[in-house]
Amino acid sequence: MPEEEPTTSPALPRRKVFTSLAATAAVAGTAGVFAGQALAQPAVAGPEPTVPFHGEHQPGIAMPQQKHAVFVAFQLLPKDMRTGKELTEKQVAAKLAALLEDWTATAEALMRGADPQPLASHTKSHFATEAIAEGLNPARLTITLGMGPWAFRMAGLADRAPRHLTELPDFPGDQLNPGWSGGDLLLQICGDDPQVISEAFLSMRARVMGTCQLKWTQQGFLSTPKGATPRNLMGHKDGTANPGFDSPEFAETVWSKKDEPEWFSGGSYLIFRKIRMRLPEWSLATADKQNRSIGRHRDTGAGLGAETETAELDLDAKDGKGKPVIPIDAHVRRVKDVPMFRRSFNYDYGFLTQKELQQDDHATGTDGHSHDKHPYDAGLLFTAYVADPANFIEAQDKMSESDALNEFVINTGSAIFAVPPGVSEGQSWARGLFG
Amino acid sequence: MPEEEPTTSPALPRRKVFTSLAATAAVAGTAGVFAGQALAQPAVAGPEPTVPFHGEHQPGIAMPQQKHAVFVAFQLLPKDMRTGKELTEKQVAAKLAALLEDWTATAEALMRGADPQPLASHTKSHFATEAIAEGLNPARLTITLGMGPWAFRMAGLADRAPRHLTELPDFPGDQLNPGWSGGDLLLQICGDDPQVISEAFLSMRARVMGTCQLKWTQQGFLSTPKGATPRNLMGHKDGTANPGFDSPEFAETVWSKKDEPEWFSGGSYLIFRKIRMRLPEWSLATADKQNRSIGRHRDTGAGLGAETETAELDLDAKDGKGKPVIPIDAHVRRVKDVPMFRRSFNYDYGFLTQKELQQDDHATGTDGHSHDKHPYDAGLLFTAYVADPANFIEAQDKMSESDALNEFVINTGSAIFAVPPGVSEGQSWARGLFG
Repeated sequence: MPEEEPTTSPALPRRKVFTSLAATAAVAGTAGVFAGQALAQPAVAGPEPTVPFHGEHQPGIAMPQQKHAVFVAFQLLPKDMRTGKELTEKQVAAKLAALLEDWTATAEALMRGADPQPLASHTKSHFATEAIAEGLNPARLTITLGMGPWAFRMAGLADRAPRHLTELPDFPGDQLNPGWSGGDLLLQICGDDPQVISEAFLSMRARVMGTCQLKWTQQGFLSTPKGATPRNLMGHKDGTANPGFDSPEFAETVWSKKDEPEWFSGGSYLIFRKIRMRLPEWSLATADKQNRSIGRHRDTGAGLGAETETAELDLDAKDGKGKPVIPIDAHVRRVKDVPMFRRSFNYDYGFLTQKELQQDDHATGTDGHSHDKHPYDAGLLFTAYVADPANFIEAQDKMSESDALNEFVINTGSAIFAVPPGVSEGQSWARGLFG
Repeated sequence: MPEEEPTTSPALPRRKVFTSLAATAAVAGTAGVFAGQALAQPAVAGPEPTVPFHGEHQPGIAMPQQKHAVFVAFQLLPKDMRTGKELTEKQVAAKLAALLEDWTATAEALMRGADPQPLASHTKSHFATEAIAEGLNPARLTITLGMGPWAFRMAGLADRAPRHLTELPDFPGDQLNPGWSGGDLLLQICGDDPQVISEAFLSMRARVMGTCQLKWTQQGFLSTPKGATPRNLMGHKDGTANPGFDSPEFAETVWSKKDEPEWFSGGSYLIFRKIRMRLPEWSLATADKQNRSIGRHRDTGAGLGAETETAELDLDAKDGKGKPVIPIDAHVRRVKDVPMFRRSFNYDYGFLTQKELQQDDHATGTDGHSHDKHPYDAGLLFTAYVADPANFIEAQDKMSESDALNEFVINTGSAIFAVPPGVSEGQSWARGLFG
């Protein structure tokens, strides 16, 4: 009865291990480790699309954006699952350290297209892996870890927390849904293949049992035209002002400052904002209204009054009547010179509430464009990497006060995470934090 | 003040029009029109990934699956938006005919990467298009129309409705959410680029104003390993039993029968079922339990007792103890020999309710794998094209009665649509229906 014998773990062939020049460089020594990140860009065009896991910085930041992302937030469990007893800070810390060890090994394997170690709770009667991505290549899969302010407190690590890690304040106008805000741990999982991302998500999630629980997930996508800046669902280019990966400005903008704890050197902060766009209303606005709301020409991406996308914005320019060429409340005024690296993704979740549409909706005769009862949830998963969240907070305050875009967008999600530095081979995400 | 002048429609450069050998063949005459569909497959590998719109059958069916799909259902408005007066059947029919004309032209343009005509309601002060997919190629974009039973009745076309179009019954065990069930009109929008799909969705949706309203959208993805059958989120191959596109069996399975109204010749039926999978529970099941639930070996796809994926299933085979090799309640027993062409997509929506997680959840200490309060919504957007829905209904009845998979799946959505035949150049989707 061979067909009744369980297919045991060893019977499962390991997936082909993909390698890349970049990965090879990354393990070639200290210089190589650093080069690993720098080489992430060339790896894109290559035939074996893996991104190196090891390096001075975590993967999934200083590299061209992949086509898909899922942001996954977890919350640490304050009690023991079995006894129901409150955990001490030391116990939380021990669980967290073990999870970070396990996650590091799992993420590293997944990123190079290998099977992660079977779960400790699995027996030989279980499949070793999920098999969802069997036969698919990693397609630039990256897994990036973030840690929220609460995680450091719960684990008794407040004194080791990155210096600029602070809860984001409530900004005026925010309509935050806790269902996609906050979180103690974050995984940013990016790649060009959503099915590979799904397997990575399930594999990483399975590891958290007993230590944390899933709080929220948000999925986005982004298509980058050849040699051009990608566009958001408003049709506008997004990320024009980003510093180039190789520029000193990038390092200054993104990587941790000198005043941080030593273990955090090479780290960053991730700011996540879910921004719902009122797309039908936007589509009904005139071209002029759209361009003046942003402060740029939609089609070229050039600032108003400028000819090219990359030309410096002239905020002082006046028209013949003495009025500012770039309107006083244009979006670009609020964000100009704010040091941040934007790595946002578009999203489209359909109807927000997923609630039952009543049968009598069939008889309401409402306009197909108006769905206040059932808001349509599409827009931008705004993601910025910064060396200092204070700059973002200041800019967001200005935007919330007066920004022409506010008529067309609603901030419905908000979260901040410290992004630990990358690790070398043999090290784990727990290393720096737990000394 | 050039920056204050509205960017008028003519100022927007049209997107590059992509052509393909297949598209060229499709317009070369009657034989070419038919060949257009047959050539859809070769077009995949080509450098200019367009799928021909015109042909005997609609696009998006007899071709390898794209990586992404959005299913969009609309309901017809029974009242006039402005006056609130009930519409007569003739008035509904006139609006429906106009929408189908407009949708045909819009879909045809989008599929070849051209800009659709501006909306009738737009002035020269509006942008002519959304620009979301500016600079991106169509990436095998297909737009496929379906019509639900109610649409024919509302438009007074009951006597012209396809003969086998019937509402799906309530199957035992179904936990249907009307938020993604039913609908009068369906658009299946598929492609390899989710951003191109987003623009297509927004462009098609904008046309419905005054005629129908959006009822639901569901998004899926699917990655097909080279030369292999794609896998679902349970890790199992999905679509193994599908007939080849070129086989007589495919035509018999999919395209309308001889007893249908003449205008429907070349049409089909689309059955849509949203199947949520209990993935954490599945992952905890042993390999043996998984394989026996399906009736196939997960890793090879071979039926239990067989060596290869394509080997005929032997439902009569007994083991040494006289027990069936393929268990009595195995899933494959329910669906074997049911004539259908499966074109399903995986989906992952995160938490179903998107409801606020209570602050005190932080203190519940629940297992990260158990989310009954907030079910995690991932699984399969089961999509089957059939010549006769009765066969599917019979199979689903059997599955609902006794199928080992029922322990791991919940049917939460259900819809059926007649899929009109394809159109030749110069014709529209309204042609056959309105005579």
